[in-house]
Amino acid sequence: MNQKKVVLGFSGGLDTSYCAVYLNKIKGLEVHAVLVNTGGFSEPEIQSIANRAAILGVNHFEVVDITKLYYADCLRYLIFGNVLKNNTYPLSVSSERIFQAQAIAEYAKKVNADCVAHGSTGAGNDQVRFDMMFQIVLPNVEILTPIRDLKLSRQEEIAFLKSHGIELDFTKAAYSINKGLWGTSVGGQETLTSDKSLPESAYPSQLHNTTAQTICVHFKKGEPIGINDTIYDHPVETIQALQKLAEPYAIGRDVHVGDTIIGIKGRVGFEAAAPLILLKAHHSLEKHVLTKHQMIIKDQLSMWYGNWMHEGLYLDEVMRNIEAFFRDSQQCVSGKVMIQLSPYQFQILGIESKHDLMSSKFGSYGEMNKSWTGEDVKGFTKIYGNALSIYHQVNTEVIS
Amino acid sequence: MNQKKVVLGFSGGLDTSYCAVYLNKIKGLEVHAVLVNTGGFSEPEIQSIANRAAILGVNHFEVVDITKLYYADCLRYLIFGNVLKNNTYPLSVSSERIFQAQAIAEYAKKVNADCVAHGSTGAGNDQVRFDMMFQIVLPNVEILTPIRDLKLSRQEEIAFLKSHGIELDFTKAAYSINKGLWGTSVGGQETLTSDKSLPESAYPSQLHNTTAQTICVHFKKGEPIGINDTIYDHPVETIQALQKLAEPYAIGRDVHVGDTIIGIKGRVGFEAAAPLILLKAHHSLEKHVLTKHQMIIKDQLSMWYGNWMHEGLYLDEVMRNIEAFFRDSQQCVSGKVMIQLSPYQFQILGIESKHDLMSSKFGSYGEMNKSWTGEDVKGFTKIYGNALSIYHQVNTEVIS
Amino acid sequence: MNQKKVVLGFSGGLDTSYCAVYLNKIKGLEVHAVLVNTGGFSEPEIQSIANRAAILGVNHFEVVDITKLYYADCLRYLIFGNVLKNNTYPLSVSSERIFQAQAIAEYAKKVNADCVAHGSTGAGNDQVRFDMMFQIVLPNVEILTPIRDLKLSRQEEIAFLKSHGIELDFTKAAYSINKGLWGTSVGGQETLTSDKSLPESAYPSQLHNTTAQTICVHFKKGEPIGINDTIYDHPVETIQALQKLAEPYAIGRDVHVGDTIIGIKGRVGFEAAAPLILLKAHHSLEKHVLTKHQMIIKDQLSMWYGNWMHEGLYLDEVMRNIEAFFRDSQQCVSGKVMIQLSPYQFQILGIESKHDLMSSKFGSYGEMNKSWTGEDVKGFTKIYGNALSIYHQVNTEVIS
Amino acid sequence: MNQKKVVLGFSGGLDTSYCAVYLNKIKGLEVHAVLVNTGGFSEPEIQSIANRAAILGVNHFEVVDITKLYYADCLRYLIFGNVLKNNTYPLSVSSERIFQAQAIAEYAKKVNADCVAHGSTGAGNDQVRFDMMFQIVLPNVEILTPIRDLKLSRQEEIAFLKSHGIELDFTKAAYSINKGLWGTSVGGQETLTSDKSLPESAYPSQLHNTTAQTICVHFKKGEPIGINDTIYDHPVETIQALQKLAEPYAIGRDVHVGDTIIGIKGRVGFEAAAPLILLKAHHSLEKHVLTKHQMIIKDQLSMWYGNWMHEGLYLDEVMRNIEAFFRDSQQCVSGKVMIQLSPYQFQILGIESKHDLMSSKFGSYGEMNKSWTGEDVKGFTKIYGNALSIYHQVNTEVIS
Repeated sequence: MNQKKVVLGFSGGLDTSYCAVYLNKIKGLEVHAVLVNTGGFSEPEIQSIANRAAILGVNHFEVVDITKLYYADCLRYLIFGNVLKNNTYPLSVSSERIFQAQAIAEYAKKVNADCVAHGSTGAGNDQVRFDMMFQIVLPNVEILTPIRDLKLSRQEEIAFLKSHGIELDFTKAAYSINKGLWGTSVGGQETLTSDKSLPESAYPSQLHNTTAQTICVHFKKGEPIGINDTIYDHPVETIQALQKLAEPYAIGRDVHVGDTIIGIKGRVGFEAAAPLILLKAHHSLEKHVLTKHQMIIKDQLSMWYGNWMHEGLYLDEVMRNIEAFFRDSQQCVSGKVMIQLSPYQFQILGIESKHDLMSSKFGSYGEMNKSWTGEDVKGFTKIYGNALSIYHQVNTEVIS
Repeated sequence: MNQKKVVLGFSGGLDTSYCAVYLNKIKGLEVHAVLVNTGGFSEPEIQSIANRAAILGVNHFEVVDITKLYYADCLRYLIFGNVLKNNTYPLSVSSERIFQAQAIAEYAKKVNADCVAHGSTGAGNDQVRFDMMFQIVLPNVEILTPIRDLKLSRQEEIAFLKSHGIELDFTKAAYSINKGLWGTSVGGQETLTSDKSLPESAYPSQLHNTTAQTICVHFKKGEPIGINDTIYDHPVETIQALQKLAEPYAIGRDVHVGDTIIGIKGRVGFEAAAPLILLKAHHSLEKHVLTKHQMIIKDQLSMWYGNWMHEGLYLDEVMRNIEAFFRDSQQCVSGKVMIQLSPYQFQILGIESKHDLMSSKFGSYGEMNKSWTGEDVKGFTKIYGNALSIYHQVNTEVIS
Repeated sequence: MNQKKVVLGFSGGLDTSYCAVYLNKIKGLEVHAVLVNTGGFSEPEIQSIANRAAILGVNHFEVVDITKLYYADCLRYLIFGNVLKNNTYPLSVSSERIFQAQAIAEYAKKVNADCVAHGSTGAGNDQVRFDMMFQIVLPNVEILTPIRDLKLSRQEEIAFLKSHGIELDFTKAAYSINKGLWGTSVGGQETLTSDKSLPESAYPSQLHNTTAQTICVHFKKGEPIGINDTIYDHPVETIQALQKLAEPYAIGRDVHVGDTIIGIKGRVGFEAAAPLILLKAHHSLEKHVLTKHQMIIKDQLSMWYGNWMHEGLYLDEVMRNIEAFFRDSQQCVSGKVMIQLSPYQFQILGIESKHDLMSSKFGSYGEMNKSWTGEDVKGFTKIYGNALSIYHQVNTEVIS
Repeated sequence: MNQKKVVLGFSGGLDTSYCAVYLNKIKGLEVHAVLVNTGGFSEPEIQSIANRAAILGVNHFEVVDITKLYYADCLRYLIFGNVLKNNTYPLSVSSERIFQAQAIAEYAKKVNADCVAHGSTGAGNDQVRFDMMFQIVLPNVEILTPIRDLKLSRQEEIAFLKSHGIELDFTKAAYSINKGLWGTSVGGQETLTSDKSLPESAYPSQLHNTTAQTICVHFKKGEPIGINDTIYDHPVETIQALQKLAEPYAIGRDVHVGDTIIGIKGRVGFEAAAPLILLKAHHSLEKHVLTKHQMIIKDQLSMWYGNWMHEGLYLDEVMRNIEAFFRDSQQCVSGKVMIQLSPYQFQILGIESKHDLMSSKFGSYGEMNKSWTGEDVKGFTKIYGNALSIYHQVNTEVIS
């Protein structure tokens, strides 16, 4: 009889290292460890994780790079929608997890896996995101979650690995850092409280540049295609280049508290220089080129899009429908946005676009103009105020 | 026969000074000049405007102070709703105009005026706000708008005043500044373009303090009642005290572009240190004490509340209904918010509230806890993902 | 040691009869059977259920009548909001269950119960509604659900009861009927399919009156206070009287399919003559007395209010906030509505209200009038169309 | 010098007949009378209007048939969105006017007209729709509106025509009827009141069939493609065939009161058998094949789509974006819907679709099933109710 095959989402950390050995040695499964790169891992980091997988003795180690797919199917829409959860958090980790889970599920489908495993605990959002994606994409594949089921301490996990001859460095860092293309999350003892903020040193990027500079980001149909004099081959490169420029200013830090899928409030620090700059730059451009009604509806759809992405509902068909709206809304969102980078903050200076609706051809706000007269506005106001006027006359005695 | 009576909204600027003389001397009306203070005028400023009114020879000059009413009927709700137009602009001037118009209309009603007048041009939002309020509150009173009707240049207005013996200083400032309790707007040649930002010097408050400090704002049922160790008699004092603290950091500057009531895009600079700090502090507190659904619905109502306020629809009954929702939603929005003020920026450090839902009693996010088990979450995910799972199984061939 | 006390939601049907005996005889609990009347049970029905409880040997049987509370805390708001789930279903059973669960929980709190029990299976919405309410109101009380846990067939339940000497008639009806003040649900083999409709005979009310008649319903601040010449002491009486009038016309039948809390689609037949008439009558009156914006926002809040009520989230504070909005919106919803009842259908004929905004004083639609001129409308349209006009001129080449 | 050219929207009624002669004889313009058929005019009716144009002496008469374009660009989306204004009115006339105005504007562009004219009065919505469309599509073409400007009585118009030798029959009908593909509007003295309903005889279709029949409508990706055993070449034929079948049952009558663009309330009777049946049938099918979230978002977008269509904002780009959402949402809205037609009413009996999510494969609502267990639901409820549970424990003293 064939050995059963499990596909394990693998990051090289203590929990997934434990899973790799446990699933193989205790559960007797053929372990396929899959590292999904959504843009957060560098080549040396990947190599180091590969080495770790080899030491742990996994049957197969695979790196799946979905950075461009993650951009095309997700980040692009987060930009189109100016999505900030509760007006604060760019969904750095939330969105990444969904696509990692999907890539693992697709890989499991490809290799005909009997089981699929993740290393999440029972205490957070990620378990729900992984479980959901697996049960939807792989309805007949068993989901294994040793960390959640066994509830071991770090010490117990390390002891188990040692007992199987694995001696790796699993020192716990003071802050748990999750680095991704769309921002880095930072958790620590302060984020377990409501009243304390993260110390400067907890953030991975420190202030290295105190000289303000002005840059310009180019957008084409809503996508960030270049910076200053460079148009990149792919928007992912724009994001990376912008991150490099902005990081030394320690821009884009904040602490968010929000509702988790499991009903409690959770607090997380993050730094996301490029995402926050791109979102505000894109929004500023939109304010010049979209109609009032487009912005009203987009804002509402964005809130739902972000919330549902966060809550693991990415595969709900409504998300595709909203994406269709978003794509269609970006036809005229082209032009450039001038931004000033300064220590800890940035400022939108202005925009240029051939779709700019603030065209002086039609009169400037607050200046007299050729397109209409004061008489027109009098007529406008008369009719515009008609309903309220009638209401107040009919209901005088009720109101006063 | 009695002389007809006009009530004129009066600020002492060139346009309303022209109106005062024109309505009296050319139109033969008894002019009641009314200055409405919504918290933007200091005592010396008011005295100086009173002097001007005397020089202009108005029949009666009246100061109506509605600062507390403006807070109770408007600012309070802008805070409850975390209202920022297009996620940017705290409606500094927009909201103020509505209440100035209303106060003028109420005064006109009280003195049985035959006419009511404002000094707005035909090029902006304010004319609509004044016209609307007047025609609703005073359906049978004639509205006079000399500036809009006559379309005179500054030179012509000054010449007219001179010809009636008025020699006042009407030098045009480089930037048009409108100071109010809820922020100061700044217009200039740059705001007539899309690509230029205001120079540092255009902003009334300059950076005078470069030493960061931590403050704390106290909220009670959503209202800002105090700062640090002081609880004030009235929230208006909290706003004023906070403004005084934050102003020297040059906090709260931005340039907004948005849709005007008359259909064109308009751009305006502003600085609003206290409003922006209060809105973000209040929002941060709400994220700890409101349920997810409360925030979702509040966000949507706030968008409408802000838009309609901006567009002069304050008297629509729906605004009262939204206010009822807002009030009811603030029962638990009590506690304090710690904020760090730094040059050009501020940061929310944390909150304390006895209504904090991020109570460690029920388990901390990402930590194991006593209230539920991993098994519970497995069951949750199974049911939570049911609909999507069914959808994807039914529509496999459609989706792929 | 004291016997532990369980409070059981009791309807006298097979499932809760089984629970009563099982909890007492097998689990050794002191059983308090509570029948909650939300207006669906007549006196003789209650007496018959009380007899059954006695035969089953419960330790205590209690009838809690919450009809007026159910109206005040729920039906009133469903009327204010014109709530129809998916534009079809008046939430007849969904809303009732919430309040039955709450009444049972309150009773359990009062008698200091150790456990609380319901008879729902694991296949529907009701289990979630009961569980949710119990765990929220009684966080430290154990929830017992024998029917869900034991998964017995009807035969097994009947056999168990027989073995304990209980010989009651538990013949299964062809259609499962749930009668309440806000409508009667009907389930049967057809509702388990997508393509079959219920036969005429499945509905409890049959057509007995084929002569059309015109009635009139009186509303005061949104509440139905009377019919024809009678003003009732309580709106519940209005609902009952209207039901009596409309039932013989077989009005208000439909079959609804919708999303259950557990993620599958569920289909249910219902007849709800009084609810459907009241909702449409109330809505018609509102169209005359509310502003456009009030209706827009109310419609959106109503959708959420109905969905969340359906999904067991009644205790979310957002529901209280929405209710505050609803109450505030009903100030002018007073007047009478004329309705024609005919076999299988009804028609709104017209309304009368002193708050009617369609007052001919201000001009009739499509007729010339005194309040504004064609010139005013020209000005209006010029400004009203400004934004679109600019958009199309700026983007001519993009659009064509 | 060339004679200036005017393109006149022409229906053959008194007002547009007056315009034709006035613009030619008094204004000296070359009159191009354009009749736009959106599916409401039969061949004989068109011939009769052509004759009338000849008698009036227009320089050129043109019939533009846009029925299929009207369907593709408008009705299709009204069906996708289940659009009923205020849950009542299918926008029969409102939507038609927009497309007639657009066709006239396009024609004017094609023939390089100097002016464009419509015959609307100053008292209704249509003037705004025509003005708006003309000023957007033809920014440099003069708009002429003789009827609005001259405010003549019918008698004066008839006398004018007589004075120019035109003797046509312009007897005023008791009810003003506007027949279109998407329904017929009916106005009369009753609709100028709030309390009176239209008499049976006012409706163009009378009850001719009292024998109920069951029909079935086929949908493909949301579009109605056939009835019973016939699949039509074009959905317009489905609408026409359905109308023919349903009309004899006098189905789809109602009286709507709503907010006009000019701020007053307007009331209109209508009969729209095919539209109302199609909308409810489509909606029923959607309830089986769309996810809960798709329906929630679609409902909100539909409200805006309908309102903005009604208010003449069809050319706002947001409408295109919403249409993109609608199209994308219809991928699985295929199948058939069974409907019973009876006198004055119809009933949806059921649906069949291979995308039906109420598939018994996954368990039936209220029946036990294989996909999940009662334990799963317990876990679900625990987590699902977590947030409320915490809220109520934290705020016990606040709530009680």
